Parts: sequence; structure tokens; C-alpha cells
Amino acid sequence: MNERQEEARFRRRAVKVDDAMELVIAAAVPGRRETVPLWEAGGRRLAEAVAATTDWPPFARAGLDGFAVRSADTALASPGLPATLRVVGAVAAGELASADVAPGTAVRIMTGGAVPPGADAVVMLEQTADARLDGHAAVRVKSAARPGQNVAPQGEEFRRGSAIAAPGELLRPGHVALLGTFGYAAVPVYARPRVAVLATGAELLPVEAPLAPGRIRDSNSAMVAALIAQAGGVPAMLGRVPDEPDAAARAVADALASCDMLITTGGVSVGDYDVMAALLRGIGEATADGEAPGSQLPPDSRLLFNKAAMRPGAPTSAAIVSGKLLVALSGNPGACFVGFELFARPAIARLQGASPELARPKQATARLVGGFAKGSPHERFVRARIRTESGVQYADPLAFGKSSMLASIPAADGLIRLKPGASGAAEGDVVDVILL
Amino acid sequence: MNERQEEARFRRRAVKVDDAMELVIAAAVPGRRETVPLWEAGGRRLAEAVAATTDWPPFARAGLDGFAVRSADTALASPGLPATLRVVGAVAAGELASADVAPGTAVRIMTGGAVPPGADAVVMLEQTADARLDGHAAVRVKSAARPGQNVAPQGEEFRRGSAIAAPGELLRPGHVALLGTFGYAAVPVYARPRVAVLATGAELLPVEAPLAPGRIRDSNSAMVAALIAQAGGVPAMLGRVPDEPDAAARAVADALASCDMLITTGGVSVGDYDVMAALLRGIGEATADGEAPGSQLPPDSRLLFNKAAMRPGAPTSAAIVSGKLLVALSGNPGACFVGFELFARPAIARLQGASPELARPKQATARLVGGFAKGSPHERFVRARIRTESGVQYADPLAFGKSSMLASIPAADGLIRLKPGASGAAEGDVVDVILL
Repeated sequence: MNERQEEARFRRRAVKVDDAMELVIAAAVPGRRETVPLWEAGGRRLAEAVAATTDWPPFARAGLDGFAVRSADTALASPGLPATLRVVGAVAAGELASADVAPGTAVRIMTGGAVPPGADAVVMLEQTADARLDGHAAVRVKSAARPGQNVAPQGEEFRRGSAIAAPGELLRPGHVALLGTFGYAAVPVYARPRVAVLATGAELLPVEAPLAPGRIRDSNSAMVAALIAQAGGVPAMLGRVPDEPDAAARAVADALASCDMLITTGGVSVGDYDVMAALLRGIGEATADGEAPGSQLPPDSRLLFNKAAMRPGAPTSAAIVSGKLLVALSGNPGACFVGFELFARPAIARLQGASPELARPKQATARLVGGFAKGSPHERFVRARIRTESGVQYADPLAFGKSSMLASIPAADGLIRLKPGASGAAEGDVVDVILL
Repeated sequence: MNERQEEARFRRRAVKVDDAMELVIAAAVPGRRETVPLWEAGGRRLAEAVAATTDWPPFARAGLDGFAVRSADTALASPGLPATLRVVGAVAAGELASADVAPGTAVRIMTGGAVPPGADAVVMLEQTADARLDGHAAVRVKSAARPGQNVAPQGEEFRRGSAIAAPGELLRPGHVALLGTFGYAAVPVYARPRVAVLATGAELLPVEAPLAPGRIRDSNSAMVAALIAQAGGVPAMLGRVPDEPDAAARAVADALASCDMLITTGGVSVGDYDVMAALLRGIGEATADGEAPGSQLPPDSRLLFNKAAMRPGAPTSAAIVSGKLLVALSGNPGACFVGFELFARPAIARLQGASPELARPKQATARLVGGFAKGSPHERFVRARIRTESGVQYADPLAFGKSSMLASIPAADGLIRLKPGASGAAEGDVVDVILL
């Protein structure tokens, strides 16, 4: 270790988590767009504002099966003294009525049928009885129909031209239904970003390799791939970064040439062998004191942060390299997971057009189960199980303070955000949680 | 309408929602299996139990960068009187130590390195200072190290052979990390079931068609496709069912010949033109009174239910046809959505090996925002926004009682389950919610 490294390791300046998150969100620029068939649009992010192409409903629609009537004709109807209306026609869904509804008449109508001119209410089939009137088919209505009853008026839900979804919105099944209603058979969405995954660490073996003394398998790369896919990206598995800085810089450059973003795992802490820290350190120095860049990365690289005020994952770093975002996560699996949720997931959402607001993690509040006596100078993120009981949401920490524990990662459905402070948090305290 | 139909429509027997759910879960049999690369395993369901192939950690690991020491050597250390230990070697992650740690010595160690024999604690680099001792490199330790400090003992998290995931479990990114750790480069999972989607309704136009008087576009099929994909299935879009029962039965048979399950939308209510109701009615009659089947479906078809005790979506039906599950959802978009969540999503999970327990919707409790005066003889499902405030979870109903409303489907992240009863629910009541 040379003196310069020795010095650098103790002067990384911790950036607050929310600020670091804003930096990655600002650095991730919405990318390519494409058009997909409507039935494949679920889970994608919309690339253009879409609006109602017609009023909805497009005509006054029957809400159920029965008879379209003039409510006034039924005003005095009761089970003992039903109104008897002559049936002058029928309207199936998709058809127009064969006749208007004149006073004293009714039209048989199916769910979704266009309510014929003259009628202002639909009486449920089960509340009617067949009858005859002057030798014609008729229907008996046993109670008064309210005007508008079981009728959805034209334009009740949407006026033509009103907005139905904004660019960057994640299309849920309900959005897909709306898009279908308004005739969007092909949907403009942001392309899924290609996100490169590179691991660092001389101790790492490929997953398929047998274990060797002192070595472990690279499980972070596959975990990050699963997280990328969950976030809407396409992982590109590029293997392990060489330990030598020049070769590592080349691997980073190659990854960014073919992908929209790069996530590395490991090699960011203060150890002698931390190749990502070595690459990023140079950028930081050049920025801080105007020296010639000490990094093998391209000269237009820009460090966003190389320390976050958080535990676990303090050495998590991010930079812009070749105009693209590089997020360097910790090699500790728990810290890697937390770092992904805080920085990589928002960036991947942003690459798909999410607004900064929509890109941020979904947060809620919960009551803490069990106390946590120890305060922390930095924000602490604790994996937890979230459950509700009688309407109260509880966050039950998993493996408190054991961020390296693999075992509890699958079970976590929330990350408790413990504020920095001299004291910890007590049983029952309301805490912020990021929902996973 | 003939008399027999007239009679049948009023005698559909409502099955309780939980019972109906059990019926579809029991009818959906876990299907084909396949093997996928680990990095593509996220979001899939495991097909075989997997176990730890080694202890984890596989050796005593350093939790951070620093020096491996014998804690006894530091017992009396303080900032004023540090312990000075001779540095006899170094161990990088992935390597074994060049020397054991004898009394009075220390070994430089990186995060993840194998703690050398003799050492029982790791002192953080930042809590040490370089020194010299008798002309040799040494390190000063300023405080007492606890035995085991910053060391993860071998097997602390997993003993070789212990279970890490069960068949049918949905693989989350954390599971993927565990599988990688234990060398599962290829993962046995259930194949994504092919789920056919057929719409019914003479009023329906394809999404790409211009509107015509009295007609609407088929938005349910694309919504159901998005829901199927979300549930882990692969939608097969088969268009519209012919209105004529024989042709409809052929379309159903064709769909089931090429797919693992069929979802239809519309045509299940009591109207004259409800082709799915007509097909399923026959099965029901044969089952109920031993008459010859009145249905055009194969004779070994079995009706599971043709009415659910719920609103919306009472006419939702399910049957086993050609040995496969047919779920017939309502054509009303809101009811279609609810029916999917209650019956189709659990079935699709089950086809992928989920246990009945895991297949059921994820439920929580919340406090109701606003009251709902009207009771209902059947369970009522109300789309809602779920939010928490100071650790209390609230369910805020969207479009109460307007199940046909399309506009509010995208915004819903929960379904309130209102119990049947004479009275409704009051502001602040604790209600069950299905999380979407």
C-alpha cells in the first residue's frame, strides 16, 4: 500500500443516501423507445402520453341484463301493483335497439347494450316477470326505477382527449385495459435497458466451479441479474473484472460500449486489492484537487460519490463513465442487495423514462418489532419482514446488524430505514420502510 | 329463451369465495419442469428441494479489512497503551494465509479472507496504526478485541445439507444468491404455463378496429394477458369465441389442446347470448340430476362452480374440461379483474408448483377510509389504494360500488374484502385486503 492510497482511503467523503440517490437518478437518462403489441405492454414503461380517443362509455350502456324503461312509467310500481310495459324490442350487446322506448313500453337489453332513445333506466331481469298486454308480449316491473338506474351515461368515465397515462408510468394490467378500450393496439414504451454485470474479487469462483480453499462462488452476479430483471432491465452477464487496473478499465469500457449501464459488485472498500475503488479513486482526486486523473478510466469520467452515509454498503460508489452510469456495489451480499435497491433500481427505472418521483423506492411506515439499542452515525438499512395485524403494519428485522448474512435475504420484503443518531430505535417506534 | 334456460338461470348455486378458490387450486396440477441458467431463475418457481452443498461460510471469514489477531493478545490494549503485534503475513480474499497467528503476532487480512489458524478476531484497519517491533513490521491495536469479533465462523449460516428452498417457492433475488453460493448454476423450475385467452361477446371489436355504434373494443383480453404474465404464465391470445355453442365448444377444445389452462372473459351471466354460461350450464345439469349432458363440451367435463358468492363477478365460473382448468371470468372489466385475482392467479401459481398455501392471494389488514353503509348478502371486493401513515395501514376505496369503472383499475393496489352482512363497514373498521 502506498502512502497516497493510505491517505485516500480515509478521506472518502460520505454522501447522504437521499442525495446519492438523486445523483444516480439525475445521471440516468431515459433511453431508447420501441413499440410493443398491447398484450405485451404490461410491466413496461410508457414512452408517450396517451389520451382517451373517444368518450367512455362511448354510448349510454346497460349495467346489467334486464329491461330498458322510462323511469316515469314505473314511478308508482310496487309488488302489489306492478307496472306492465309492452316489450317493443330487444337490444343485444353490440347491436342497436330495434325500437325506441316510447311511454308505456320497454326494450329487453343485455349487459353492455346501448340504452335505446327514450329509456333512462334499466330494470334487472330478476326484478321483472313476463306478462301479456293486449295480446302482446309485456313485462311486469314490481318497483319504481330511479332515473339513471343501471345506466352508465356516455362519457361518465372519460371525455375524449382526457389523459389516461403519462410518459414513464409503469403499465399495470389496468392501464392495459384502458389502452385497449381506446384502441391502442401497439404501445410506445421505453426499451428495456441492457445492464452489464461485472464481479470483482480474486476469491470468486464461477457458480459452476467446485469450491477451493479460501475461495467462494460469485453469487452476487446472479442475484444482481435477478434484481435487474425485476426492475425491467435485461442483464448482460460479463463475468469477473480482472484485478489489474488497466485490464479492469478496459473491461468497464467494453461493458459500457455494449450496454446502457454497468453494475459491478465488490472491490469498492478500503482493501489493497479493491480494483473498483482504485479506478474510481483517481476520478475523485482529479475532481477534488485538479491533479491529473489518477484513474485508468476515460478522462471525461465523473465521480458521483464513492461513499454513502449508510450501513451496510458505505463504500458503494457511482460514476459516469463514457456518458453512462456505473454503479459499484459492495461485495458483501447484504450490502450489495441494499445498494441495488437504493441506487441501481431507481436508475434502471429512470432509464425507462420514470420521472425522478416514480423512480424512487416505494416507502411506507411501520412499527418496529424489537428494539435496537445501538445508534449509528449514518442511516442504517435493516432487512425486515413486513406484516400487518389489525391494520397496524409491523417491520420485523431479520438478522439485525448481520448485513453479510445471506440466509435472510430471500425472506425480506422490506428495508427498515433507521435514522442516524446517538440512540437506536425502540420497540414500537414508527420507522420508515422501503417496500421490496 | 326456452323454459329450461329460464329455470337454470335462477338456480345457479353460489359457492363461497374461499371454497371456490380451493376448487380451482385443487384442479390446477403442477405441470412441466425445465432447467434454466441461474441468472434467469429469478421470478420462477423451484421444481425440486435444494439444500446447502457445503457449510456456509465454508471457512471462518473476515467480516472486514484489518488484522487477524489472537484476542487474548489485545485484552489490555487501550489508546494510551496499545498492544503492538508483529505482522507475520497477509491474507487476501481467495488466498490462504502465509503464516498462522502465533501469540504476539497478527496477519493482515482483507474482507472475506480466511481467518488463519491461531487467530480468533479481526481488528478493523481504521482502529490500527502501523508500527515497528524489533526491526520488523508491526501493528498497534488500541483497544481490546472480543473473541470472534468480525469473524463469521464456518457453518454459521448453513450446515451442509440443510434446506435452502422448497419446491414451488417463488425464487426471489435472495434465493438466487443462495443458489449461486451453493453452486447451482442450473436450476430446476416449473415451466411457465401457457394460458389461453378467449373473449366472448358479440359487441366486441378487436382493439385495432374503429368503434362502431353499440360496440366496444375487447380490452379484457389484453388486460388478462398482462395479468397472466405478471403471474408467471405465458398468454396465448386466441381472439373471440364464436357465439354459436358448437363452434364455441370447438374453440374451447382447441385452446385446451395447445395450452395448460384457459381463461375466457364475458358470456357468463344470465343473458340470452351468454355462450360460456350456455356451455357450462349443461355440465351443471348433468352433475346435478344425472340427465344427459346438456353441454357441447366433452362428456368428462366437470363443473367446479358457476356462481361465486361475491360482488362483483357473481357469475364467474370454473370447470375442468379435457382434464384442464377453464376459468370463465365476467366481461365487466372490474369483475374480470377481481375474478382473475381470486381464481386465475392462484391457479397459475399452482400450475407452477406453488403449494395451496403459497398459491392463495397475499392478504393483510387495513383500516377502512370512509364508510360503506350498504350491507351485502355476499362478500364484496372493492378496489382500493393502500397506504400507511404512522405505521397504520389504510385502504382507501376507489369507485365504491362502481365495479364496471375502468378508470380506477390501474390505481388499485389492493382489494378490500368486505364480509357479507346486513350492515356495511364503518370508517376506521379493520378490513381484510388482498395486496395486488
